[in-house]
Amino acid sequence: MTAEPLNIRSYLEKHYPFWEHLNAQEQELLCSRSLLQSCRKGEFLYSNDDDCLGILLVLKGQLRIFIQSGDTREITLFRVGNGQVCTLSASCIIQEITFDIQIEADEDTELIVTNVSCFRSLMKQNIYVENYIYKETTEHFSDVMWAMNQILFSSFDQRLAGYLLDESIRTHSATLHTTHEQIARNLGSAREVVSRMLKYFEKEGIVSLARGTVTITDEKRLKTCTYGEKRCKCQEKNK
Amino acid sequence: MTAEPLNIRSYLEKHYPFWEHLNAQEQELLCSRSLLQSCRKGEFLYSNDDDCLGILLVLKGQLRIFIQSGDTREITLFRVGNGQVCTLSASCIIQEITFDIQIEADEDTELIVTNVSCFRSLMKQNIYVENYIYKETTEHFSDVMWAMNQILFSSFDQRLAGYLLDESIRTHSATLHTTHEQIARNLGSAREVVSRMLKYFEKEGIVSLARGTVTITDEKRLKTCTYGEKRCKCQEKNK
Repeated sequence: MTAEPLNIRSYLEKHYPFWEHLNAQEQELLCSRSLLQSCRKGEFLYSNDDDCLGILLVLKGQLRIFIQSGDTREITLFRVGNGQVCTLSASCIIQEITFDIQIEADEDTELIVTNVSCFRSLMKQNIYVENYIYKETTEHFSDVMWAMNQILFSSFDQRLAGYLLDESIRTHSATLHTTHEQIARNLGSAREVVSRMLKYFEKEGIVSLARGTVTITDEKRLKTCTYGEKRCKCQEKNK
Repeated sequence: MTAEPLNIRSYLEKHYPFWEHLNAQEQELLCSRSLLQSCRKGEFLYSNDDDCLGILLVLKGQLRIFIQSGDTREITLFRVGNGQVCTLSASCIIQEITFDIQIEADEDTELIVTNVSCFRSLMKQNIYVENYIYKETTEHFSDVMWAMNQILFSSFDQRLAGYLLDESIRTHSATLHTTHEQIARNLGSAREVVSRMLKYFEKEGIVSLARGTVTITDEKRLKTCTYGEKRCKCQEKNK
């Protein structure tokens, strides 16, 4: 955890559109209560038991926002990348939000954490700050609805195909370094279900599997698995 | 559809907290673009194909907000009752919202519909209106997260028990006039699954079934089905 007041000011000014509506004193408060923080891939930033963390601005890397049930089943809600903000990590200052989330660094991540008491006062005294927080939260809402639709309405082969393609784009690689367990966690499914479907994809020549990796060998066919009209064999079989 | 300008003004004044931040002209605009509307139980208010409906203020009755997949499977997101507002019916003016919902009247319902172009201009010129819309939408977000948690993390017997209890409270009656098909739609499940579990509840003496009705005969035991610690037999069996 390093405080670099000068850098921080320029980042806040660049990324928070309400900056221009803050008076000098409010700008000063925001800067003084914001800290640069780094976290390693796989590190947790927030859990139900901790205090309310604060508003997060990601400068580099990516955070994964998810919910977890008692039996450790996880559902990924959305991800927050470069230049994006997470407000759900400060749910204690948004009285309308009555649910808990968890945050994990997907990659080595650098971010600015602004503490909640600062945002609490700014929201109270400046409607532009309050409006910004609710606006960003509404954007998270849309992301969550997208995830929910995927989980509830897509067949599992479509979801798995979509996930593999997304990960391939995100990591700029056809080879994904991941376990079946990790994929299952991200899709809110069981390892056995993921393994079975991956083996089916492998038989069809769509992916190749090795210890700790999944390599996409036929991207075109994988794509036909994900969307409505052109359904691939795997789905027919799986219906 | 009847316009009653005088009544409408007093309702808007009472239920919209941003009213005091509107100038006389803005108040006039809001009143003139708001209409009293009645709809019968079971009537649809909105579908993906229609134009953006507007902001809804429920005066009497209740609306059910849900999403639907291609194959007509439904998921109830939340309900909006007396004095409550629905903003998702005006998603075209909230650019962060990129999903579609459907609305059905759960009961005979009276509401005020304010058209979107009115809210679009008010939001643009008055930050208090914009802030109100995002705040209400954030509240919908919380409701949706609750529904999502129920769907994803509760076992089916817990969800069914919770649903029957909720409906019994909502209708002030131990006898629910509903079909298994309707329950399945509300829980995003299949009729067969609902029928099987209801028959199990019946065998356990928790409910009694007749054509078009489900009657709760042992509310206490039904309650033990819904919550974590005290698990009823049905769940043990169903695990």
